[in-house]
Amino acid sequence: MLSSKNTLLLFKNVRYMSTSKTVGFIGLGNMGAHQAINLIKKGHNLVVFDMSKDNMNKLKEKGAKIANSPSEVAKQADVIVTMLPASAHVKSVYCGENGIFQSVKPGTLLLDSSTIDPATAREVASIAKKHQTTMLDCPVSGGTGGAEAGTLTFMVGGSEQDFNSAKPYLECMGKNIVHCGDVGTGQVAKVCNNLVLGISMIAVSEAMNLGVKQGMDPKKLAGIFNTSSARCWTSELYNPCPGVIETSPASRGYTGGFGSALMTKDLGLAVDSAKSIGEPLLLGNSAHQLYTLLVAKGDGQKDFSVVYDFLNKNFKNSN
Amino acid sequence: MLSSKNTLLLFKNVRYMSTSKTVGFIGLGNMGAHQAINLIKKGHNLVVFDMSKDNMNKLKEKGAKIANSPSEVAKQADVIVTMLPASAHVKSVYCGENGIFQSVKPGTLLLDSSTIDPATAREVASIAKKHQTTMLDCPVSGGTGGAEAGTLTFMVGGSEQDFNSAKPYLECMGKNIVHCGDVGTGQVAKVCNNLVLGISMIAVSEAMNLGVKQGMDPKKLAGIFNTSSARCWTSELYNPCPGVIETSPASRGYTGGFGSALMTKDLGLAVDSAKSIGEPLLLGNSAHQLYTLLVAKGDGQKDFSVVYDFLNKNFKNSN
Amino acid sequence: MLSSKNTLLLFKNVRYMSTSKTVGFIGLGNMGAHQAINLIKKGHNLVVFDMSKDNMNKLKEKGAKIANSPSEVAKQADVIVTMLPASAHVKSVYCGENGIFQSVKPGTLLLDSSTIDPATAREVASIAKKHQTTMLDCPVSGGTGGAEAGTLTFMVGGSEQDFNSAKPYLECMGKNIVHCGDVGTGQVAKVCNNLVLGISMIAVSEAMNLGVKQGMDPKKLAGIFNTSSARCWTSELYNPCPGVIETSPASRGYTGGFGSALMTKDLGLAVDSAKSIGEPLLLGNSAHQLYTLLVAKGDGQKDFSVVYDFLNKNFKNSN
Amino acid sequence: MLSSKNTLLLFKNVRYMSTSKTVGFIGLGNMGAHQAINLIKKGHNLVVFDMSKDNMNKLKEKGAKIANSPSEVAKQADVIVTMLPASAHVKSVYCGENGIFQSVKPGTLLLDSSTIDPATAREVASIAKKHQTTMLDCPVSGGTGGAEAGTLTFMVGGSEQDFNSAKPYLECMGKNIVHCGDVGTGQVAKVCNNLVLGISMIAVSEAMNLGVKQGMDPKKLAGIFNTSSARCWTSELYNPCPGVIETSPASRGYTGGFGSALMTKDLGLAVDSAKSIGEPLLLGNSAHQLYTLLVAKGDGQKDFSVVYDFLNKNFKNSN
Repeated sequence: MLSSKNTLLLFKNVRYMSTSKTVGFIGLGNMGAHQAINLIKKGHNLVVFDMSKDNMNKLKEKGAKIANSPSEVAKQADVIVTMLPASAHVKSVYCGENGIFQSVKPGTLLLDSSTIDPATAREVASIAKKHQTTMLDCPVSGGTGGAEAGTLTFMVGGSEQDFNSAKPYLECMGKNIVHCGDVGTGQVAKVCNNLVLGISMIAVSEAMNLGVKQGMDPKKLAGIFNTSSARCWTSELYNPCPGVIETSPASRGYTGGFGSALMTKDLGLAVDSAKSIGEPLLLGNSAHQLYTLLVAKGDGQKDFSVVYDFLNKNFKNSN
Repeated sequence: MLSSKNTLLLFKNVRYMSTSKTVGFIGLGNMGAHQAINLIKKGHNLVVFDMSKDNMNKLKEKGAKIANSPSEVAKQADVIVTMLPASAHVKSVYCGENGIFQSVKPGTLLLDSSTIDPATAREVASIAKKHQTTMLDCPVSGGTGGAEAGTLTFMVGGSEQDFNSAKPYLECMGKNIVHCGDVGTGQVAKVCNNLVLGISMIAVSEAMNLGVKQGMDPKKLAGIFNTSSARCWTSELYNPCPGVIETSPASRGYTGGFGSALMTKDLGLAVDSAKSIGEPLLLGNSAHQLYTLLVAKGDGQKDFSVVYDFLNKNFKNSN
Repeated sequence: MLSSKNTLLLFKNVRYMSTSKTVGFIGLGNMGAHQAINLIKKGHNLVVFDMSKDNMNKLKEKGAKIANSPSEVAKQADVIVTMLPASAHVKSVYCGENGIFQSVKPGTLLLDSSTIDPATAREVASIAKKHQTTMLDCPVSGGTGGAEAGTLTFMVGGSEQDFNSAKPYLECMGKNIVHCGDVGTGQVAKVCNNLVLGISMIAVSEAMNLGVKQGMDPKKLAGIFNTSSARCWTSELYNPCPGVIETSPASRGYTGGFGSALMTKDLGLAVDSAKSIGEPLLLGNSAHQLYTLLVAKGDGQKDFSVVYDFLNKNFKNSN
Repeated sequence: MLSSKNTLLLFKNVRYMSTSKTVGFIGLGNMGAHQAINLIKKGHNLVVFDMSKDNMNKLKEKGAKIANSPSEVAKQADVIVTMLPASAHVKSVYCGENGIFQSVKPGTLLLDSSTIDPATAREVASIAKKHQTTMLDCPVSGGTGGAEAGTLTFMVGGSEQDFNSAKPYLECMGKNIVHCGDVGTGQVAKVCNNLVLGISMIAVSEAMNLGVKQGMDPKKLAGIFNTSSARCWTSELYNPCPGVIETSPASRGYTGGFGSALMTKDLGLAVDSAKSIGEPLLLGNSAHQLYTLLVAKGDGQKDFSVVYDFLNKNFKNSN
């Protein structure tokens, strides 16, 4: 017998399947592969493309159809999801040779879950419009764990109506689907969120280091933060000081998690956005510089909480 | 008939009163006056001193005895609580002419709830030892609201045994009494907490401003932060953008709350601590500079969340 | 009778005229108009284009021929000089519709004296190559004064041979023609020079302000700097404190000179360059932020030494 | 036969000797020992004190008399010169047990050539007044080379009359004796000078690194700086890029010169001064942090131009 929850899921899946839509997926990396699999699990027919044959074959095993180019995907799909590393890739996959726009069908729904600058998001969306298609920016938070579990947060930029059209597809991949406003605001929200996160990590690292170097027990200090005005996600759930939280990247040698290089990229988007509209970003810029130092030093693949290690060990033997 | 809770309170008060200790209190400003009144409410006999006659008279009306100097307080008290603006005042009140150490009785418990640098805290505590007395650093968080309500958090530095002796007195003034470690660590914890807080406020301000200037609705943006990795006390309970939280200082013209000048002072302590032990404090220093700018500009008495206003209005008409 | 110097100039002019080359000039703003006039004065036939009819008419009065587009210039010219505000304009004038490359003659020498990012300079130069033409980056220093007097410094990127071909034309507009290295290095040198300049101005402003606020006479303090290890162009020739140097912008209300907005642009190029190659730029970024503040505050058109005023007056009445 | 210049020097020396003044000297480190020897060379009788017996014995060999304490020096001297590491030492040598003020003769001229904060300089000078003595702050620039050669620059704070009394003694140790203003302004000038110097070094390092990493020849780039608006003492005489100037510390592995730890100390004085008067010091603080990083990393004894190495090698193998 089915529990009410399972019944509900069944109905949801039935509803999707009954529409018989084909979903294209381009960009099958650490995040994208999981997202695509979750779409299949929810009953969608997938046609996929990635630069790597291996990545495509993994999806083929799960039931996806393989295409030779973004353009080939576009010919077959009613909805296309893209998950790409940076603005340049988004431009190329949509507007380039053998790109989506070369053969996209009018009415196709285009959902870009890459993290890119809002200006590019708006620019490509306006080209999409010329092809009688609709493009929304839907960057995510939640990491590879969230991608695999289907619990990502999607920050969506687009009209209310388009958001409602996109929601059922995004719900196959995430559990928190937030409408941020017009096209581009999904990217704005993502960038602003990570701006706070990147600065916050340095703040907690500087304060933990200052306390520990003056004789405080790190768990006691973190405990004070977490019950006082210094409380933040970084301190509570992702503390950069090894041993404070057993499951944090800091407690396993700063492996896994969200790399310094990715944080440098996201803060770079914040810095560029601020620059383009002439707004100062004093701490945001300094934070960007500090992560740039970490990457230059060779710690780009370590979790971004490695900033604590950098401060704590005085750069002497932090590798 | 008494509820069990009231019975308990009654017993506690009885216990205090039965010991018949006289508590000295020096420093009856915005914070200290409330703390002293709470000690009276809990049944203690108080003898007080302040530079201002007016401040003393207000306490006299509540039943306190007035003294002419810290030394006069020390002659009569078994326990002395001090609440002073800065290190120089603490040194003077304890070690100066007509200071506490001139006539303190051996065995007196000295509780300094001022926020000062850990080095001074340790220095004065070591002089206290020579007078056969015990001094603990007990800085607070919670503001004047917490002082009045008796819900302050005390961060206490001293031995386990001394902490236990101090706890009943501190519980008259606060509800969260945390033992941080040896003498000085109370100040360390306070300074580190406010270091995170001061930086965090700028982070949220820069990100809210960047988002709003790019078309995001401020409540929506704050909502995203609060359910994601940018979540922090500043964003959730004290958002610097007017209108996001109805009861925050930002929503009443940045009045009330915790002044920029006080944040500048606390970050100054962090900066000095780091300097004295040769540790870098990259964002901490930049944050200190930004609040210094706000104070120089004339916003020292405004709540420290006024940094959002400074960024948002481009300095043009922010007064 | 001619002095030997005049004779020499005469011969130089004769040599130029004998070659009968037609020089195209695109971008007749504050700098470009003077440069174009100097080319005419040295005997060249000019064909010019600018977005503004007025600007073109002024050159027509001096003897230049007017064209309807960059492409029209390119059809007639053997050498083309461009002087444009930013990278986007350079791309458009060279590669856009009715742009230079639409009709450029093989063998044309292209001299871009705009200040743009090195990557764009290299990109457009490589497109130039495909058209069998040669493009050099030749940004200048010396301001409108130097442009009018023909005493500009040109920082030139290109091969040794191409540099030698360009030199006679550049010598018509400047007196210090420096070969920096391969294509793009002219821009690199310009950006690096202004990076030092922009930081140096803030350094001198902070130090002058700190000294003056502590009772030093500003002229005496500047005198000490200039005979000691703080000596720099900014302090000696362009001191930001009013009255120290009678002829500096600071002594005439920060008018004239080199605007904060232009310094913000140039530091922005440095910041972008560093970002693109993953190099940290700690003070460069902070300096960029400070000028961004000045522009946001409304001081973009004031000389960049206005940073002293900003610090000195505590933002209260600096307009 | 004597040239007029030699005659003048002879007379000067005769004048000094004829007055038969005894000069006390306290602090015979790297700088002080050379200064004391130069006073002996110019014909003065010296009585010296230092914490190190060895340092005193070296001066004894040169003809100085040894004392057991600052107080013993003060009993015998008409003029006392001090050269000490920091404010705490100055306070102790003047005001401490067996200090100068314990036995100083009324009318003694006290010349402190240490680099300390202006507030301490003013405080000790005001105590000196109570002992009917006159104290001037006379910090130096020029390094150990200048100390040995007797070519130091002295920045002097005190009244015009006192400055004139001090000048003949200072001229025995230096060649550029600058009157800065009232007591304390000597320190102000020194600190402001080194503030510009410390920032300027980072500016040149960032710009040289940015240029070199983009393919510029370092000598060519420095040459452009030195003939343009980036010209500064740091670039011209002390370039941080190895090989640009053969005799600079950079060209001999950053040995010799002015250590990062000393620059950190001097910028620390600037930061403290600014803090004490509530003035922002944006780049000054960031520069202080960067040198603090270098010291923490283990480069405190290397010349402060090692900041270039830190940037250039990406922290990977810079030791």
